[in-house]
Amino acid sequence: MSEDKLRIDRIQKGTVIDHIDSGYAITILNLTGLDESQNLMTIGVNVSSKKLGRKDIIKIENVFLNQTQMQQISILSPNATISLIDNFRVIEKKKVEIPKVIKQLIVCVTKTCISNSEKEPIDSEFLVLEERPLKIECKYCERRYRLNEIYFTSKEKSGKKIKQALNL
Amino acid sequence: MSEDKLRIDRIQKGTVIDHIDSGYAITILNLTGLDESQNLMTIGVNVSSKKLGRKDIIKIENVFLNQTQMQQISILSPNATISLIDNFRVIEKKKVEIPKVIKQLIVCVTKTCISNSEKEPIDSEFLVLEERPLKIECKYCERRYRLNEIYFTSKEKSGKKIKQALNL
Repeated sequence: MSEDKLRIDRIQKGTVIDHIDSGYAITILNLTGLDESQNLMTIGVNVSSKKLGRKDIIKIENVFLNQTQMQQISILSPNATISLIDNFRVIEKKKVEIPKVIKQLIVCVTKTCISNSEKEPIDSEFLVLEERPLKIECKYCERRYRLNEIYFTSKEKSGKKIKQALNL
Repeated sequence: MSEDKLRIDRIQKGTVIDHIDSGYAITILNLTGLDESQNLMTIGVNVSSKKLGRKDIIKIENVFLNQTQMQQISILSPNATISLIDNFRVIEKKKVEIPKVIKQLIVCVTKTCISNSEKEPIDSEFLVLEERPLKIECKYCERRYRLNEIYFTSKEKSGKKIKQALNL
């Protein structure tokens, strides 16, 4: 038996997210909601790369990213590049950019922060103090966070997502 | 610019999980903990398949699955096949099998169920009543679950996993 069935081909039209920090591709799919896409996706995790040593890559057919998804990727993987593909060719290639202020995508965990007020909650805003490694500060209560301390806002997922109970 | 860099090659040694129900590959990676692997992985989501219409596939180098991971996959995707690869060839191929009794992998959400007793909790056990679509029953309190109602046990993840706050 020869094991040569899966050769993942170029995509005709869609998006290639390349130079993702190694090990972050699945995290990016979960956060951006691309994990629920009905489109053809091919993903490489811990792929050899001249530039990064190792990297991840995501190719997704017939999908173009919105601003929110680009910002989510920039937070998790500031070196990532986004290529738009049409007719098998790269028609545009750009680097993601971390915004100076991150709005709504992240939750401040300070309970008394005005962004969590039960009566009149306001949208969260975080100032980006340092990009790499990431350091951000809540605009309201000034609490500071590094990447591994961040809680992202997310939508309830449906369909094929599983529910997990931690540490039971 | 030609977009032809990512051709995902055959693996020399490792595991191919094929015929995964479409859309479940990322879920399987998250549940089995393979998402934290340091090894090369290539993943196809919503790939065309003669047998299933669409399917997902995971190839992971230098990794062989343990019994727990095989059971987790069988619950999420009972048609999945596992191929062990060595020297670029399939040396063994098997179908996953749903066990008759699922132990520890799933949490009963009935608070008063003896499996959740605070004093002397005992390991959960679920009887598999029907395989496809899945229907299981808690051995202790007899509560029944379908796949989308199941809570899986999980380990706290470290490293590159993000924390998400629902619906804020």
